[in-house]
Amino acid sequence: MAPAFEEDLRERQRLLEDFLSSCLESFAMPAGLREAMNYSLLAGGKRLRPALCLSCAALFGLEADYVLPFAAALECIHSYSLIHDDLPAMDDDDLRRGKPSSHKQFGEATAILAGDALLTDAFALMASAGLSGATRPVPAERTLGALRAVALAAGSSGMAGGQYLDMIYTARKDVTLEEIRKMQAAKTGALIAASCVSGALLAGAGAGDCGRIDAYGRSLGLAFQIVDDILNETGDEAVLGKPVGSDAEKGKLTWPALLGLEKSRELAAAAGREAVKALEAFSGAEADFLRRLVEYVLKRDS
Amino acid sequence: MAPAFEEDLRERQRLLEDFLSSCLESFAMPAGLREAMNYSLLAGGKRLRPALCLSCAALFGLEADYVLPFAAALECIHSYSLIHDDLPAMDDDDLRRGKPSSHKQFGEATAILAGDALLTDAFALMASAGLSGATRPVPAERTLGALRAVALAAGSSGMAGGQYLDMIYTARKDVTLEEIRKMQAAKTGALIAASCVSGALLAGAGAGDCGRIDAYGRSLGLAFQIVDDILNETGDEAVLGKPVGSDAEKGKLTWPALLGLEKSRELAAAAGREAVKALEAFSGAEADFLRRLVEYVLKRDS
Repeated sequence: MAPAFEEDLRERQRLLEDFLSSCLESFAMPAGLREAMNYSLLAGGKRLRPALCLSCAALFGLEADYVLPFAAALECIHSYSLIHDDLPAMDDDDLRRGKPSSHKQFGEATAILAGDALLTDAFALMASAGLSGATRPVPAERTLGALRAVALAAGSSGMAGGQYLDMIYTARKDVTLEEIRKMQAAKTGALIAASCVSGALLAGAGAGDCGRIDAYGRSLGLAFQIVDDILNETGDEAVLGKPVGSDAEKGKLTWPALLGLEKSRELAAAAGREAVKALEAFSGAEADFLRRLVEYVLKRDS
Repeated sequence: MAPAFEEDLRERQRLLEDFLSSCLESFAMPAGLREAMNYSLLAGGKRLRPALCLSCAALFGLEADYVLPFAAALECIHSYSLIHDDLPAMDDDDLRRGKPSSHKQFGEATAILAGDALLTDAFALMASAGLSGATRPVPAERTLGALRAVALAAGSSGMAGGQYLDMIYTARKDVTLEEIRKMQAAKTGALIAASCVSGALLAGAGAGDCGRIDAYGRSLGLAFQIVDDILNETGDEAVLGKPVGSDAEKGKLTWPALLGLEKSRELAAAAGREAVKALEAFSGAEADFLRRLVEYVLKRDS
């Protein structure tokens, strides 16, 4: 992979880490709650969703300074979803990125509240991006449209609904491939696509361009999820931060469990090609970055 | 109490029930999740928060049609908070309004997700109020400001933070009255105040008026919480929907437990007077309605 891409990606990740580490400072919250929220939010990770938001905004000419509060909010929402997914009543995971999961570290009540607060504060951050107090405010109507896209992608018709289906399907055991695809599209794909689309909306992109960016995000999200499932079977425990094969052991609905490794890899590659194809209309450095991001996501499985 | 007020209140409640019963229809979500969300959202209740939002918007001349999506969202947030508060890891309540609480009815995982989805969908509803697809759109900048006020009131520095403090303080047992007041202000007062302020903001009220409405909401919220605690000790089980005295039995921090019933009643009445005082600058039918609402809240304890 081109070193320029990797340097660009690291630069964006650094920018995001800096912003994330201080984005909750202005919220006057109890110290113990702050500790639990930051424990999950600042635990590292690829920062894929905010990076996509920044990149898709840049594709339509909007600089990072305008987008950072919004991008950080996407990571808050992602963090909340991991905390709640790990709860004993949900996936019951003791480990997350090699550390005790939130409820193991702070107890279940604090974990539930830390998740609730990250989700809610995310919307305050997003709204701030479009209000006159922001360092560089985005027009309010654009901000509101982008915020709504994120809310729809995270709520009952997106991530939360997908998580519900995952639970139902895992118990049912006679699920079709089409059902799994729909479930994954809601659970993971919708927020990844909304990360892209919200960046485009903040930058004032029109409906046609937003449709293309949405298609890119959905295909990238599918590729990402398949690769994630493959890595859980074949990856390095030190990178995974939990035992290899733990998802399959829990009877989770993973792509390799359904299709085998080889077909899963083919499906991921096909989704990656779809993502690149959705960008056909765009050229320049930012479009190249988004195309390279597809390679990067696929390359994780190697 | 004047029959006209009670008729007005019932009329607003009817309007809200109608809107609430269909407000999630446009969200394409799994049937089981919808059932769980509607189970809590449509379980009745006083609809105090949306009624305050409608009334404070009307005080500054904005009609109900513009405000309903936003008002309904406030009730979604209130419903989410009740579902999560009832969870085994939190207050562990089996009953809510005389029916099994959400996790008793649907299991813990579904209850967590129904709460998460109600909270998230609420922000989609709020954003919709200011976008061109709305029946009657409010200007985007006003909507964004109102949405931000609600997010701040529900998140780490408001309701979620207050719930965290409640948990910490209940375990500590050596809490000062000032700490309790601060905790209650965050846990209950902030969202009630934000329900009022968001209505005013949607209607385009200025900073001075919003400050007065905020003061009204905070005092009303305090009075409401104290009366709620008193009713839990002295009320009618059929109205409470759970055993009388159940909060005190669980060692919850209630006003009567701290101050006794008589002093609690005095404090509620004083808070009610503060609320009415905050409305001094306002006249007309809507201001009268808001003043009567204070009486109504206090009268519940009789």
